[in-house]
Amino acid sequence: MKRLLITGAAGALGRAMRTRLTSLAETLRLSDISDLGTAAPHEELVQCDLGDADAVYKLVEGCDGILHLGGISVEDKFSKILNANLLGLYNLYEAARAHGHPRILFASSNHTVGFYRQDQHIDVNAPTRPDGLYGVSKCFGESLARMYFEKFGQETALVRIGSCMEKPTNHRMLSSWMSYNDFKLLNERVFTAPMLGCPIIWGISNNDSRWWDNSHARYLGWKPQDNAEIYRAEIDAALGKPDPTAPLHVYQGGNFVKDPIFRDE
Amino acid sequence: MKRLLITGAAGALGRAMRTRLTSLAETLRLSDISDLGTAAPHEELVQCDLGDADAVYKLVEGCDGILHLGGISVEDKFSKILNANLLGLYNLYEAARAHGHPRILFASSNHTVGFYRQDQHIDVNAPTRPDGLYGVSKCFGESLARMYFEKFGQETALVRIGSCMEKPTNHRMLSSWMSYNDFKLLNERVFTAPMLGCPIIWGISNNDSRWWDNSHARYLGWKPQDNAEIYRAEIDAALGKPDPTAPLHVYQGGNFVKDPIFRDE
Amino acid sequence: MKRLLITGAAGALGRAMRTRLTSLAETLRLSDISDLGTAAPHEELVQCDLGDADAVYKLVEGCDGILHLGGISVEDKFSKILNANLLGLYNLYEAARAHGHPRILFASSNHTVGFYRQDQHIDVNAPTRPDGLYGVSKCFGESLARMYFEKFGQETALVRIGSCMEKPTNHRMLSSWMSYNDFKLLNERVFTAPMLGCPIIWGISNNDSRWWDNSHARYLGWKPQDNAEIYRAEIDAALGKPDPTAPLHVYQGGNFVKDPIFRDE
Amino acid sequence: MKRLLITGAAGALGRAMRTRLTSLAETLRLSDISDLGTAAPHEELVQCDLGDADAVYKLVEGCDGILHLGGISVEDKFSKILNANLLGLYNLYEAARAHGHPRILFASSNHTVGFYRQDQHIDVNAPTRPDGLYGVSKCFGESLARMYFEKFGQETALVRIGSCMEKPTNHRMLSSWMSYNDFKLLNERVFTAPMLGCPIIWGISNNDSRWWDNSHARYLGWKPQDNAEIYRAEIDAALGKPDPTAPLHVYQGGNFVKDPIFRDE
Amino acid sequence: MKRLLITGAAGALGRAMRTRLTSLAETLRLSDISDLGTAAPHEELVQCDLGDADAVYKLVEGCDGILHLGGISVEDKFSKILNANLLGLYNLYEAARAHGHPRILFASSNHTVGFYRQDQHIDVNAPTRPDGLYGVSKCFGESLARMYFEKFGQETALVRIGSCMEKPTNHRMLSSWMSYNDFKLLNERVFTAPMLGCPIIWGISNNDSRWWDNSHARYLGWKPQDNAEIYRAEIDAALGKPDPTAPLHVYQGGNFVKDPIFRDE
Amino acid sequence: MKRLLITGAAGALGRAMRTRLTSLAETLRLSDISDLGTAAPHEELVQCDLGDADAVYKLVEGCDGILHLGGISVEDKFSKILNANLLGLYNLYEAARAHGHPRILFASSNHTVGFYRQDQHIDVNAPTRPDGLYGVSKCFGESLARMYFEKFGQETALVRIGSCMEKPTNHRMLSSWMSYNDFKLLNERVFTAPMLGCPIIWGISNNDSRWWDNSHARYLGWKPQDNAEIYRAEIDAALGKPDPTAPLHVYQGGNFVKDPIFRDE
Repeated sequence: MKRLLITGAAGALGRAMRTRLTSLAETLRLSDISDLGTAAPHEELVQCDLGDADAVYKLVEGCDGILHLGGISVEDKFSKILNANLLGLYNLYEAARAHGHPRILFASSNHTVGFYRQDQHIDVNAPTRPDGLYGVSKCFGESLARMYFEKFGQETALVRIGSCMEKPTNHRMLSSWMSYNDFKLLNERVFTAPMLGCPIIWGISNNDSRWWDNSHARYLGWKPQDNAEIYRAEIDAALGKPDPTAPLHVYQGGNFVKDPIFRDE
Repeated sequence: MKRLLITGAAGALGRAMRTRLTSLAETLRLSDISDLGTAAPHEELVQCDLGDADAVYKLVEGCDGILHLGGISVEDKFSKILNANLLGLYNLYEAARAHGHPRILFASSNHTVGFYRQDQHIDVNAPTRPDGLYGVSKCFGESLARMYFEKFGQETALVRIGSCMEKPTNHRMLSSWMSYNDFKLLNERVFTAPMLGCPIIWGISNNDSRWWDNSHARYLGWKPQDNAEIYRAEIDAALGKPDPTAPLHVYQGGNFVKDPIFRDE
Repeated sequence: MKRLLITGAAGALGRAMRTRLTSLAETLRLSDISDLGTAAPHEELVQCDLGDADAVYKLVEGCDGILHLGGISVEDKFSKILNANLLGLYNLYEAARAHGHPRILFASSNHTVGFYRQDQHIDVNAPTRPDGLYGVSKCFGESLARMYFEKFGQETALVRIGSCMEKPTNHRMLSSWMSYNDFKLLNERVFTAPMLGCPIIWGISNNDSRWWDNSHARYLGWKPQDNAEIYRAEIDAALGKPDPTAPLHVYQGGNFVKDPIFRDE
Repeated sequence: MKRLLITGAAGALGRAMRTRLTSLAETLRLSDISDLGTAAPHEELVQCDLGDADAVYKLVEGCDGILHLGGISVEDKFSKILNANLLGLYNLYEAARAHGHPRILFASSNHTVGFYRQDQHIDVNAPTRPDGLYGVSKCFGESLARMYFEKFGQETALVRIGSCMEKPTNHRMLSSWMSYNDFKLLNERVFTAPMLGCPIIWGISNNDSRWWDNSHARYLGWKPQDNAEIYRAEIDAALGKPDPTAPLHVYQGGNFVKDPIFRDE
Repeated sequence: MKRLLITGAAGALGRAMRTRLTSLAETLRLSDISDLGTAAPHEELVQCDLGDADAVYKLVEGCDGILHLGGISVEDKFSKILNANLLGLYNLYEAARAHGHPRILFASSNHTVGFYRQDQHIDVNAPTRPDGLYGVSKCFGESLARMYFEKFGQETALVRIGSCMEKPTNHRMLSSWMSYNDFKLLNERVFTAPMLGCPIIWGISNNDSRWWDNSHARYLGWKPQDNAEIYRAEIDAALGKPDPTAPLHVYQGGNFVKDPIFRDE
Repeated sequence: MKRLLITGAAGALGRAMRTRLTSLAETLRLSDISDLGTAAPHEELVQCDLGDADAVYKLVEGCDGILHLGGISVEDKFSKILNANLLGLYNLYEAARAHGHPRILFASSNHTVGFYRQDQHIDVNAPTRPDGLYGVSKCFGESLARMYFEKFGQETALVRIGSCMEKPTNHRMLSSWMSYNDFKLLNERVFTAPMLGCPIIWGISNNDSRWWDNSHARYLGWKPQDNAEIYRAEIDAALGKPDPTAPLHVYQGGNFVKDPIFRDE
């Protein structure tokens, strides 16, 4: 690619991809509402509020791929989710429509299905069961992307990210973890596949203990290489015997299922 | 019920229900952003923008049932859909949570699945395929309601209304039509069922030609009485031989699938 | 048929069938562990403990059909269930195997699936979820019958009876009720069908509000005629507004789900 | 329609439709390899071997609908099936392709699924299990029609006819019977539907005892009016107690499952 | 764990686990109706008839895990199965209920599904098709465990053991074999999983040729290490060309499907 | 085996198997309509038109296994397909029936499902969607084989070959490729399996990017060893960036979906 846009590039996941995806495009355009530091030679930095349609329109111009990590990424007040995850996503898809439909990888979330139990093995046809306003906003994003695909041919990978971080830190993440490197490999597949379509993909590593079935997306040839299992002993040692009735161990969404709704004052 | 709230009561469907649901509650509280005319003795009229959280909070207070017809009901600019169908719905559910979880009938839409072909017979587990921003907003509504059900026990009937009007006026409506009386019967079932849960229900009459399977919701005992079939000859006479390749006859969402996205200026 | 055996003939359902199934066979052989009163000319009365293999062997001899209503029909101590529903059923099938495989209608129960919610619509492929020892014993019966069918060709109708009584008396029974006449019609179909096989059949009338799908068994041509719906007003009047969170209204098995296990002293 | 072609018009089913479908088109073009008698004013008679491509090309010219009953309709030597049902069908579809894709109703057969048991309830997604060369030729026809639909947009109704005759004459036909009038009604729906697509449809009346699920094709609005059940007593009286282990009562294809393969000498 | 109870510890599988599961608990309590030899320092030996409720009550006391291998493990007289596998299992679950719900691994069996063909690939939602009284008793066990899970939260792993032995000795076991070491690994997963629930698990090694799908249970992270394939040449050499029509090669339950019912005298 | 017949042995795939399957049988009988060169000591060469029943009868005599690669293997005129793939296949199955039912591996094709999109993951229960006359002829072959299995016990492996060649040469083949060695391994499994039945098997290597699910056929223990992935860089380099809207990248059947029907002059 000539230019890959990474939104949310100042967040933890964005920073991890900023250094790992350099081979995917000649230029990385990085955007965030927060400070992005100093640009490397192959980088363009753009501070941008996703809720600002004009800014997003310009942000997308000239890009032939978008890794959309931007927006609110945990449970929060609805006003913030509304601006960043609902209006912001609409702005992004309209900008993409105006600029030749660059392929998009949209960071959806396991919290679209958070109310499933951890002893349930589901595939992407399982009806969504979001566990909070954040999860609902990701369901919205998946619906919006699907519509742009059917109506305009816009291709998107809807990646329901589990827990993408350095390493898993509790028993739930032994199932939900995705390593940075596996996410990098997924980005490579998504942006180079002969045909992408608009698949939902579970964003997890090749963990021994997992809840989700990615076989429908084998056509992309993504083969995650890491396995949370190697951290089990470390987690057992740190956390002791887990309580089988705690939400963290019962629900796929973990503690999100019991989080309150944050009220705007 | 003591008091049933009907939002969107100034619209065509709202007006039809205003006169038909009087036996369901002692008082009908009617709201709309438009003028509602003069209140009958059993009526309370409240002009209200669904995007106004405080107004919605007060609107719901004291109600033990809500027929939510309010919001944008056709394809429109996203700014309007955002206010009425996204923010407005959140306001409504937060108000319901604050006021004892009155049961809700939410007017969802066939445009959540508009891209299915008319020769496909689907049930409510079929993944959504919205045909525009309006359809996407209804997917959002279904997700939000589901989350409030799982998290807080809020019961909602998610009624994917086909074409609710006096009578069907084209060949597509021979499948999608729901009579006012059948919608009235559905309201009775929803608001008096021993247990409602959070089902998706296809809002159609007992039409000979139909695409949707309601058998999962038989526990509610709703039996629509009307049948669009009796209007076939009239429609044939008025419209002539239908074109089997026109979107109106190919897609469940009809012409919505080819509607443009309306841009905010 | 020459001779139809009805076990459990002194119970409420047995008494109802004793008078209704006279046209199905020249002779009705009626058995129970309790007193059966006086035999009519076309009747043979046999007092019999199902746990007594020799007695059951003789009981079945000469019969070309068996309506098996006998055994424990509510939650009870396991010792009683063991004798009547486990050992008793084995005795019955061994007797049938020795006597030419007379066709059997086995009274199974909705309590094999009692833990499903009332807003779930299930068919016979749904995994069993028994709600007590009684329900478990009926699962055992279904397994045993299936094995005798596959291994020896013994045909059985496994009828998961909902609530078979004079009329429904609470809101749950608006879904689960089966009239005596509809059960009679089912017996006629089962004992005269060209081929029966070993189907599971939901034993309910043609109720507007129902949870179960009998379409797989349409080959038998059973069309129940009654509908619990006609009793709704009466039940509403008698019981008032139902609590949507009470087990009676949430679970298909109703209050059985919260019944204790009865301990043998 | 201007002109409806009926092939196989000299057969029993063809003769039944010749008199019943007159209102569907201004002209009926009737063809058969056998003698067709005298033409009525609205009829055109064409003697034609389906294996003759040129003859079929001319036969189809000028028709805007085809009811294809022609070909071999029972188990027979492969050479005859090859000519009439394989080559003949190809000729028909090529002729239709050359002449503007007139809509086709293709008489497929229950013998495409003859090896299913009569206690199995199946829908059109059940894999085919043909019971002889005739059944295999109908599977071929369904595949060919499907290909012409996907590749060229040719619409066909693939009607798996059960037993279409004056009335049912054995126990199997209590399930498989379709009355002439119900087939007539189906023809009306197929040739006037706004959009047909390429559905498989089970060709049976509204029989109480049935094996097949037509709910996927409800969009056509076909509602068969007859019911084989009214002939049950007559059949019971004529045939006595059926043997539950006879192929006629075990398999959906009845005795076809045990028919030999007829060898060409 | 403090104390793991192994029932049936004198059987072949019990003896294999007695030496392999020492690291799972500080103390192994071993029970059987037969002699258990001499206790090692970390062992407690208890001779016990599972049909004796009081004995079982005491047996379970103080245990925080139960590997239930006890009971009849092949086809046998019903009286013996009744005592050990029906009454015995009830006794075990009542004892577990009285003593804080220690987690249970229940040795179910492939004979719950013995009548499936070996060319059928099934998952745990496939309806049971037991091949004898032994298989029926295991269906009972699964139902009972499920009920205790839903009613009381008792967690159980229902392991449908294929052929757990030193090595496979016929062609069928190339599919059904589970090595002792893989069963050991499964025990480790079951007794240390953060949450177990009540899953059915196919008890086989990672055999190339297999009939059963364990993907629903991936959340446990069990990865069997052995593969019966390495014994194929040895079996081919010993047994010669297998007969494709023999029950041993046609049915998943092998010869059990043709075993007689053993009659009590 | 004593003697394995390979039809179509002069074609590319036939030649590849001629040298690779020598260990499967003492004698390879090779047939083709084209010249087969010189016979090696373990070979028998037979020039034969599959449309000639007598010739095929003699061809099959004395064989205890048949690898049927013969017939037309690309889109062609119907007259040629009719002779070789329809009549020819019937001749083969009749010959096999006359000669003791030697096991058959039938080379079916991915063009039976060519109209599925490449972002669809399907299993063998997906309805066929052939992409041309060639694909239709393979659907016919699968139906015929199924009928001979159910009616006469004839075992066949229906192998839907993707792209069996030296190596993949375009992006589509990264999914559809099967190496010669993997096809050889499959032949070994098919001809030595204890029981074969009549399974459909997707004929592909262990490619990272694949559309088809072979898990139903695991009982055969076939484990393909190769992976088209290793050729990706080479293909990328040779062909450049693929067009995501080209039929070659959208449909599983690739360019076949847009191929014309070849008319006989």
